[in-house]
Amino acid sequence: MIKNLCSLQQKSALLLFIFCSLSFSSLAAHPNLVITQDDVVKMRNAIMQEGRFQDAYLQVKQEVDLHLAMPNVVPVPKDGGGGYTHERHKKNYQLMYNAGVVYQISDNEKYADYVKSLLLDYAALYPTLGLHPQRKVNAQNPGVFFWQSLNEAVWLVNTIQAYDLIYNTLDEEDRSVIENQLLRPVALFLSEGQPSTFNKVHNHGTWATAGVGMAGYVLNEPEWVEKALYDLEKSGKGGFLKQLDTLFSPQGYYNEGPYYQRYALMPFVTFAKAIENNEPQRNIFDYRDKVLLKAINTTIQLSYNGLFFPINDAIKSKGIDTIELVYGVAVAYQQTKDKGLLDIAKQQGRIVLTGDGVDVAKALDENKAAPYIFESMALGDGKDGDEGALVIMRTEEPQGETVLFKPAAQGLGHGHFDKLTWQLYDKGSEIVTDYGAARFLNVEAKFGGRYLPENNSYAKQTVAHNTVVVDEQSHFSFNLEKANANAPTLHFFENNEHGTVARASIETAYDDVVLDRTIALLSLPTLNKRIVVDVFDVSSDKPHTYDLPLHYSGHLIDTNFEYQGYTNTLSALGSVSGYQHLWLRAKGIPKADMARVTWLNSNGRFYSQHSVTKGNETFLFTQLGAGDPNFNLRNESSVIRRVEGKAHHQFVSVLEPHGEYNPSKEYTLGAESIITSVQTVKNDTLLLLVIKAAEQQFLIAINTTDGSESTESVSFDFDKNRYTLSSRFAVYAL
Amino acid sequence: MIKNLCSLQQKSALLLFIFCSLSFSSLAAHPNLVITQDDVVKMRNAIMQEGRFQDAYLQVKQEVDLHLAMPNVVPVPKDGGGGYTHERHKKNYQLMYNAGVVYQISDNEKYADYVKSLLLDYAALYPTLGLHPQRKVNAQNPGVFFWQSLNEAVWLVNTIQAYDLIYNTLDEEDRSVIENQLLRPVALFLSEGQPSTFNKVHNHGTWATAGVGMAGYVLNEPEWVEKALYDLEKSGKGGFLKQLDTLFSPQGYYNEGPYYQRYALMPFVTFAKAIENNEPQRNIFDYRDKVLLKAINTTIQLSYNGLFFPINDAIKSKGIDTIELVYGVAVAYQQTKDKGLLDIAKQQGRIVLTGDGVDVAKALDENKAAPYIFESMALGDGKDGDEGALVIMRTEEPQGETVLFKPAAQGLGHGHFDKLTWQLYDKGSEIVTDYGAARFLNVEAKFGGRYLPENNSYAKQTVAHNTVVVDEQSHFSFNLEKANANAPTLHFFENNEHGTVARASIETAYDDVVLDRTIALLSLPTLNKRIVVDVFDVSSDKPHTYDLPLHYSGHLIDTNFEYQGYTNTLSALGSVSGYQHLWLRAKGIPKADMARVTWLNSNGRFYSQHSVTKGNETFLFTQLGAGDPNFNLRNESSVIRRVEGKAHHQFVSVLEPHGEYNPSKEYTLGAESIITSVQTVKNDTLLLLVIKAAEQQFLIAINTTDGSESTESVSFDFDKNRYTLSSRFAVYAL
Repeated sequence: MIKNLCSLQQKSALLLFIFCSLSFSSLAAHPNLVITQDDVVKMRNAIMQEGRFQDAYLQVKQEVDLHLAMPNVVPVPKDGGGGYTHERHKKNYQLMYNAGVVYQISDNEKYADYVKSLLLDYAALYPTLGLHPQRKVNAQNPGVFFWQSLNEAVWLVNTIQAYDLIYNTLDEEDRSVIENQLLRPVALFLSEGQPSTFNKVHNHGTWATAGVGMAGYVLNEPEWVEKALYDLEKSGKGGFLKQLDTLFSPQGYYNEGPYYQRYALMPFVTFAKAIENNEPQRNIFDYRDKVLLKAINTTIQLSYNGLFFPINDAIKSKGIDTIELVYGVAVAYQQTKDKGLLDIAKQQGRIVLTGDGVDVAKALDENKAAPYIFESMALGDGKDGDEGALVIMRTEEPQGETVLFKPAAQGLGHGHFDKLTWQLYDKGSEIVTDYGAARFLNVEAKFGGRYLPENNSYAKQTVAHNTVVVDEQSHFSFNLEKANANAPTLHFFENNEHGTVARASIETAYDDVVLDRTIALLSLPTLNKRIVVDVFDVSSDKPHTYDLPLHYSGHLIDTNFEYQGYTNTLSALGSVSGYQHLWLRAKGIPKADMARVTWLNSNGRFYSQHSVTKGNETFLFTQLGAGDPNFNLRNESSVIRRVEGKAHHQFVSVLEPHGEYNPSKEYTLGAESIITSVQTVKNDTLLLLVIKAAEQQFLIAINTTDGSESTESVSFDFDKNRYTLSSRFAVYAL
Repeated sequence: MIKNLCSLQQKSALLLFIFCSLSFSSLAAHPNLVITQDDVVKMRNAIMQEGRFQDAYLQVKQEVDLHLAMPNVVPVPKDGGGGYTHERHKKNYQLMYNAGVVYQISDNEKYADYVKSLLLDYAALYPTLGLHPQRKVNAQNPGVFFWQSLNEAVWLVNTIQAYDLIYNTLDEEDRSVIENQLLRPVALFLSEGQPSTFNKVHNHGTWATAGVGMAGYVLNEPEWVEKALYDLEKSGKGGFLKQLDTLFSPQGYYNEGPYYQRYALMPFVTFAKAIENNEPQRNIFDYRDKVLLKAINTTIQLSYNGLFFPINDAIKSKGIDTIELVYGVAVAYQQTKDKGLLDIAKQQGRIVLTGDGVDVAKALDENKAAPYIFESMALGDGKDGDEGALVIMRTEEPQGETVLFKPAAQGLGHGHFDKLTWQLYDKGSEIVTDYGAARFLNVEAKFGGRYLPENNSYAKQTVAHNTVVVDEQSHFSFNLEKANANAPTLHFFENNEHGTVARASIETAYDDVVLDRTIALLSLPTLNKRIVVDVFDVSSDKPHTYDLPLHYSGHLIDTNFEYQGYTNTLSALGSVSGYQHLWLRAKGIPKADMARVTWLNSNGRFYSQHSVTKGNETFLFTQLGAGDPNFNLRNESSVIRRVEGKAHHQFVSVLEPHGEYNPSKEYTLGAESIITSVQTVKNDTLLLLVIKAAEQQFLIAINTTDGSESTESVSFDFDKNRYTLSSRFAVYAL
């Protein structure tokens, strides 16, 4: 242990630098990518004191030590994603990087020697290899160590940093072998060798440009850096800066959704940090109005109770403790010193071994964290922020009622056909759900751990979401190209003391049907009660069948109408567009004006959805699992409101969270909804709803006209009284 | 606040007693039931210091203060269980008790006055009432305030303590009204008025005798105490002592299972404490070799990860933090000073306001808790411990693999028809499951919150459990009387360095079929791996259909055999005995010697069950939810092994927990079972199994002969080697 050796405090870091740097073996500027020589001093200082950074260091060191004792394994590439050689090469670049960091912090050459030996093994192997045997036929992006060059680029991003970290310990001959037989050929393969990927404005391109650009800094090839920034022709049509211009919206939202946003973040943050350290004059973190810092912050905002909103292809257990965001938060904290980020770092419970990691660890050790503020927001989608939006509506408590409303763009190949869908969260749990991706990540027995066939046949289909399906066909006829070309329009998003409201529409999801939805998360005054108001207008010239599913998490408790349950046999609800995966468990036609469905979530709270049906809707209770001979799907529940043979229909509903079920302490409170009536009131410019709850009456008025008109006051009459709505919406206690 | 008023330490409690007792308003020995005058001194002292006791006191005081500000509500009885007047009268006795305690601790008469006013309200109401309008027709045990006298007895247990706590503040006139118009008539109603309930050796009788006996102490009626202890005729055939003799097994196991055991505990602990305080010479806690303390300890042992094993009618979220066990642990700690109990008290997170509560709180404040040791044990069932047993097999870690094996007696009306069933727990979760009770406690919309009809039609039926069903008929033809009269036989239960093993059988569950099961939780040496071995012999003279269900919690991942999944329509598996509630989702006949079924639990671990089938068994994959038009059942999964037209069959299986699925950190380890073969080897006296795992071979030998013979060494030959088994069982690495 180095403890007591350089026991000076951080204040005297300069002195320490002079003292400790005597042991540096070279004068050249290595390391200087994410970790600089200054960072090394900072880290060596930090591990001398007990605290989070020391803990993190000892943990990484212990893992590296374990592998140091074992022989190197650099296998000839053979397996595809998830297979043995694939996983081993992934493991190796992580090991080289970690051992390089431990070398710099410990100043113990055995770690540098370990990295060197692995690099030499790789340098010996690389010239003997052709393209990977498991590459896809006619693919434009094969790898050598890996079946696709995406992984190869990730390998380079890590390996070039490892090389930089031990550069000063190598003699000329080793450097020559490693650079000429391995690093230069890999960098050239990923740039000149694959122009279409390298120049592509896409996450794969980001990894490639990050790897090649960082190699440019280390191997003293400024041209490579230029190409990484501006594309191979230095045209500016591709490259890292174009990616920063295009892949995020002005507010920092990444088109594919939070699950891929956190993954995309990694090469951006890593390369940006290297640019900042090598060419601070580029002010990369200020680029495009600080879009990178916005992207990091947005990734956090896109979570609830620590987990990302699972829209599009997403594994539902992925959350803010993901390693990419641990790096992101460290970088953002270093740039902004925002104490709210420390709250997130605390929840992450992980510290990265970088200079920024030292700052985060120290600040946490000193209890400097302040609560991170989760806000209501509409995140514009698309590079100019005008291709629809992803809308988050929150209450003050981080685990309070939260609505996600999705009039967002398709989000490329991982996007789902779910225009205007929504979700509800409450008390830490998902209440109105999104299936996420149909996938068991890396579980070989489940379709090799890849996306399951049911991801296309169900999870991406419209009926798997909480939005309207017309004639049992998914949006855009499940045509990705068409979907990518057409985004919804966000008409407004507004917040006031009554809550949050947004309206969006899309005319292109179906040839002749317009979908138009207004969703609001509101408070009922005097009752300390939040409700969700949902008004979904569906219009066409011709009659259609309109289905509006509500996927709920919990146990069905009660309805206020009769339904017929199927008890001896079940049938699939349909044959295409995901309907083939739904068992029809029960069916009913509510006769009364209002239909109520109540369920109980595992968080112990009841949820009642009140629908204004006027006898026009059929309720289909379904359970997922039909057409699923391999047990690939989870058996989730939904209730589908169906209207047949109508050109226009307005689906109106109000959702109320209520009560508490506590079988452990043996009490049940408020199991019944307090809402006894929901009525719509005709009005030309306003959406008016009257709600009776707990023997009180409330009038909800929303001005649904577009854009700025909303700021003008609108007067209206109701029940012989005159009201003036001077903001977008209001809730009146009658 | 009383802080700083009597700020002496506990050491000088005697002095304090003399000092503070000046404020006592009477010389009579009140209170003297669960709380004595000494306890009051102790509690007054305890609240002067910061700590758990003070916190608990302030919390109760705050709640009482809230109600003090509101008018008394003592409604005319009207509603049945869960209804308004029922809940209100429950609330009132809790309030009177708590206010009485707060009075004693605070010495503030307003609390005593509050109790007095409620008692006077009750005394005014009681003489005007007849039997409760919601009583069951022809019931032997109606109440007055409540629909059944059980609740009336609970009311008395609480109310007599409240009266005792404020006795000294009352004048003669109030005492006369309260005693003559309320307490005496209620006590007489519950004793002389309902001899069959009072004399019954049953939990209802315990509440009645506890209430009446405690009233005897307070109202100076020693005869009532005698009758409470020995029955109305003082014959000793009934009464509290007979209940202590009969309702628990010698090891302290309560016949109905842990869910009702914790409930039954309350009147036992309460009345015993009052007996101890009034007549210490009875040595009630030493009675029957300390059976009451054993019962408290057993209740704790009957839990996993804080929750009770959900056998028989049980709500699955009920656990060791239940208020009954909070009292139980406090009493047991006071008697034994066992520091392991403090570990449980810590997990409970609640402190009771009694003298014993002070001791627990202080010990916790002083960090005296030591880990509570959960053990492997066979808890004999029945009053002599010879009516079968409930077997718990554990590993060293409290949250490690844990097997519950149930060759227990029926357990009266709340018992399930599940002879020889079992369950597995691991990493905090239920892996092989028991449905528990079909009930949504107190949720009016779900059958009034009572046991659902599906509790009889499914949850109690044999097929809902992990044991053999013959010809689709439940054990004992679902005849409760027959079930109560016949218990299984536990042949042996033994522990050694290899693990734990037990064997049990029953000949009476079916007229002509004998069920005989051996279950072992074993370690495979060198592999650091636990497995469960399950050998179930079913024998008859005539051919039958034998079904062995395995109810598993998790997602089906993989099998090593082909099966046909039903994709367009589903049918119920049968029409009676719970089979009408099971959808048949898939069906397969494994051709190989060994059939593997692997699932993934939400705890992130995989579980593989390997069955030796030799092509003789059909596997039926089912999902619960058929015959359930009201969505009353949870949609759980099971796989049923079926053998048709055979007189004898041996179901052999080995269950292996393995690997880790961590989609958040994006890795999956050990998703495949390491077991590649399981074979049985013929032997006359021994059960021999050969298991191949991770390219090693293991021989498992269990001596299944009855009783003491097992201690004799047995030699046997296997694979040309001679082995000598000198204990009950062993695992040999070959």
